[in-house]
Amino acid sequence: MWDEEKAKPESNRRTVGMRQHFVNGLVYCTGDMMHFSQYMEDKAFIFQLFEWSMRGVARVILANNPLSGVLILGALVWASPWQALLGTLGLLTSTLTAVIIGQDSEEVSGGLHGFNGMLVSLLMGVCSSAGDWYWWLLLPVFLGGATSTFLYSGLAPLLDKWDLPVAVFPFNMVILLYLACTGSSNPYYPHHPATPLGELESNATKLSLTQLLQGVPLGVGQIYACEDLGPSVLILGATLLYSPLLGSHALLGSGAGTLAGLSVSVRHGALYSGLSGFNGALGCMAVGGLFFTFNWRTHLFSIASAFLSSYADIALSNLLGTVGLPACSWAATLTATLMLLLTGRSLSAYRIPTGRVMAPEQNIRCHSQWAAREATDSTDV
Amino acid sequence: MWDEEKAKPESNRRTVGMRQHFVNGLVYCTGDMMHFSQYMEDKAFIFQLFEWSMRGVARVILANNPLSGVLILGALVWASPWQALLGTLGLLTSTLTAVIIGQDSEEVSGGLHGFNGMLVSLLMGVCSSAGDWYWWLLLPVFLGGATSTFLYSGLAPLLDKWDLPVAVFPFNMVILLYLACTGSSNPYYPHHPATPLGELESNATKLSLTQLLQGVPLGVGQIYACEDLGPSVLILGATLLYSPLLGSHALLGSGAGTLAGLSVSVRHGALYSGLSGFNGALGCMAVGGLFFTFNWRTHLFSIASAFLSSYADIALSNLLGTVGLPACSWAATLTATLMLLLTGRSLSAYRIPTGRVMAPEQNIRCHSQWAAREATDSTDV
Amino acid sequence: MWDEEKAKPESNRRTVGMRQHFVNGLVYCTGDMMHFSQYMEDKAFIFQLFEWSMRGVARVILANNPLSGVLILGALVWASPWQALLGTLGLLTSTLTAVIIGQDSEEVSGGLHGFNGMLVSLLMGVCSSAGDWYWWLLLPVFLGGATSTFLYSGLAPLLDKWDLPVAVFPFNMVILLYLACTGSSNPYYPHHPATPLGELESNATKLSLTQLLQGVPLGVGQIYACEDLGPSVLILGATLLYSPLLGSHALLGSGAGTLAGLSVSVRHGALYSGLSGFNGALGCMAVGGLFFTFNWRTHLFSIASAFLSSYADIALSNLLGTVGLPACSWAATLTATLMLLLTGRSLSAYRIPTGRVMAPEQNIRCHSQWAAREATDSTDV
Repeated sequence: MWDEEKAKPESNRRTVGMRQHFVNGLVYCTGDMMHFSQYMEDKAFIFQLFEWSMRGVARVILANNPLSGVLILGALVWASPWQALLGTLGLLTSTLTAVIIGQDSEEVSGGLHGFNGMLVSLLMGVCSSAGDWYWWLLLPVFLGGATSTFLYSGLAPLLDKWDLPVAVFPFNMVILLYLACTGSSNPYYPHHPATPLGELESNATKLSLTQLLQGVPLGVGQIYACEDLGPSVLILGATLLYSPLLGSHALLGSGAGTLAGLSVSVRHGALYSGLSGFNGALGCMAVGGLFFTFNWRTHLFSIASAFLSSYADIALSNLLGTVGLPACSWAATLTATLMLLLTGRSLSAYRIPTGRVMAPEQNIRCHSQWAAREATDSTDV
Repeated sequence: MWDEEKAKPESNRRTVGMRQHFVNGLVYCTGDMMHFSQYMEDKAFIFQLFEWSMRGVARVILANNPLSGVLILGALVWASPWQALLGTLGLLTSTLTAVIIGQDSEEVSGGLHGFNGMLVSLLMGVCSSAGDWYWWLLLPVFLGGATSTFLYSGLAPLLDKWDLPVAVFPFNMVILLYLACTGSSNPYYPHHPATPLGELESNATKLSLTQLLQGVPLGVGQIYACEDLGPSVLILGATLLYSPLLGSHALLGSGAGTLAGLSVSVRHGALYSGLSGFNGALGCMAVGGLFFTFNWRTHLFSIASAFLSSYADIALSNLLGTVGLPACSWAATLTATLMLLLTGRSLSAYRIPTGRVMAPEQNIRCHSQWAAREATDSTDV
Repeated sequence: MWDEEKAKPESNRRTVGMRQHFVNGLVYCTGDMMHFSQYMEDKAFIFQLFEWSMRGVARVILANNPLSGVLILGALVWASPWQALLGTLGLLTSTLTAVIIGQDSEEVSGGLHGFNGMLVSLLMGVCSSAGDWYWWLLLPVFLGGATSTFLYSGLAPLLDKWDLPVAVFPFNMVILLYLACTGSSNPYYPHHPATPLGELESNATKLSLTQLLQGVPLGVGQIYACEDLGPSVLILGATLLYSPLLGSHALLGSGAGTLAGLSVSVRHGALYSGLSGFNGALGCMAVGGLFFTFNWRTHLFSIASAFLSSYADIALSNLLGTVGLPACSWAATLTATLMLLLTGRSLSAYRIPTGRVMAPEQNIRCHSQWAAREATDSTDV
């Protein structure tokens, strides 16, 4: 390969150079892009806010990369401009609330105060039965975005005692609060009551394998409450850009969730639309690569986590469905939180402290560095 | 003014003297009245128990003043003697249980072990559908009062890790336990099933502004499950006696709660009776003045807290209403607890450590003293 | 007595010797049998696993004695071989999962990772409406057993902050998860929906005192989801073998639970089958003797705990019954957890740190030793 390249004429060399540039560019754009944050540090507030927001968009799917955020926002606009507008407003409200109440600036610039607000407003839009461009919805979007920041700020010291991330607890709380508060037949804010996953009537028809397979990538899109195949694939691509490991775990988890759904015969619609897969995807991503160093043990563990998240989601969906509420991502959040607390030495040895979590690929590199350093330290002492 | 006074004849001087006496007396009676506790220290147990109990009565509305307690108890007797009797028995049971199981004597004398038992027995009386003077009700009143002290004692170390007050968590737990345990058609302890706030049928009639405005002071009375205007105003007066700042926040919060109720169109009955306001009042009082030093920032914050409490109350009421249970003050308790945990520096800087909380007016004075002392300390070091 | 014995002929002496042997043997077999663990330390893994499992079986009823475990397993086989098989499989799955994920070996050998899995699988069997020997049930049994170990491992650091035991929280979570996930009319895993305790229809008939008294020992058997009198008595016997104090508290608590049930008129079936008693039994055992040194104060306290557990169980059963779920042992677990946190000095002085808990009889002995030692220490210092 090396010899061949040397022998190539000028024109080919240029291609090689371009390819090199492309690879460099790709490396530059993947991972946490911390260099980009440093580059933005002395720019105008509006540009910085843009970077924080894009990181916030990506944070929903556990990525921390402004470019992934841009791609995902593009996918949302593609799926539904109204939804994308709502999401953006929720994102900005919660980020600005965090700035105003004086949250830690490092957290704000990492996008940690944006993703809950974004999810809240996306779900408000999806659940609303008043149709698109119903402008009164902006009121709860603003309130919900601000509230999610308050809850994030309040939950942080609670969870911090065990070095746990706040994750999407605020989103799950605020959206249940909103839906329970308004009720399905509210005159100002009507919404569709949620259908439990375990409903049986529609299962008379035969299962379609094509639609079942489509449900797997759709499960990744469902993390953003997006039900179209194209945008879902784009969201998956954005995740792969951040970290191929994280992206593949997303697909794997969504598949596991679909299998779990099949095993207890949830309604076919939920399998086809990816609703039964997205909690599995989140549970799988959190454990496989992000909060634990990737290796075969944590890989098996992440699959277990995906199944557990999915079953918990079905259970919660059946329970909350009796009062017309959706289960959101409670299952994945609770499961991942419990898994992070695991004390079994074969697994907890690979746990990465919350403050040090980076892209999975970097986690692997850093882990071996620590291990080496700690080994040296213990020899010294 | 000073010159005028000097020129006044003897009779006027006496008026001035009396006025001065009155002001002195008022100053003596407002705030935490710690001097009164010191004065009672060597009195007989029965007098001390009386002081503790009266502080316990006032603690329900976050005041810590035996005179306010006496006024409030008077308001309860005015509204319903049977209810007042139940409340007193619950109060005494839980205070004496605390003495027997050896709780910290400072907590007992501050009335901290009485208010939960009192609320439990008041709510038992209000929910009971067996009518007044149904003597069998004393059995659950005694048991509920004792249980609330056990729960207080058990929850304290849990919440203490984050320097949080136990507040009315025990009351909320015990009353739900009692109502869920007996069920609405129990042969011994029947009770009215709770109506969710969000019910729609009765909203056909036009909204009456007078009744709506009456709902605001009634919201303060509802903290003691009292639905009459006169006693409610007396309760408000007792709060103003303890601290004008706290009292005005109670009114403000109740108003915010009514507005929140209007915005999601709760049933009119709840607006008129103050049911939609009392959680807002509690949420507003806890944040504005009591646990945070009063200033314009925490004032805005207290309004946000009032709205959040009210919306959470509507949501919980709709949820618990599906099984016929009332939402009690869960919403305000949870919201205030989360708000106390807030880490945003613009607000958390004004948080007062739980052990140092006094009347809002004294909090302001003490806060500036600390600030001065801490500034000196940091210069010294 | 002593003189008489001396005068007895040879044949009688042998009886005396045998009696002595029997007493020695009995003493050897009661309590925690730590010497047996030491004896097993160098045996083959399969024998060790047997000991761990038998301790796990006994742990369900708060005992820690392999022989009690053998007796209880015998009782389960007597009641239903299929149930016993399920229980054993759940037990083995969760114990082996704990070994694989590297849990603390001392915990594993104490049987702490087995009892949750066993309870999960027993309840899966009891709730299943597919009849005995329905082999597909082994799938959820394996999954549930493994999950309960994961949850145990995750909850431990949470509860450890307050020195609380994990107890049967994982069992309660996993079984609710399973039942909510499958729903009552699932095509693969159908189950009987739970009937709330407070249902009224069947109470038309007169209460039968004999059946009511039978309900008390049955309440002990219900801890293992066993509804037959013979096996229940055997289980009680196994508990008495471990510790007479614990066994008598089990009976006492079950009786208190039955009384509590009578006082709010639960349906007669629940009283007869012991369903209304088993939470009381657990609540009473945990406080009386096990986690608190036994004396008259903690004895009264254990009765209070039994009543509180029972009332909480009725309340939870009514609530969860609305969605067709059983209340399991949530009530006893939550109540006991709160009681362990109690700060009242008259009771908390007798609290035994979780790591030092032994059989009640040994707790009494050790407590006086500490007290003496601590007294000496404080004199020295």
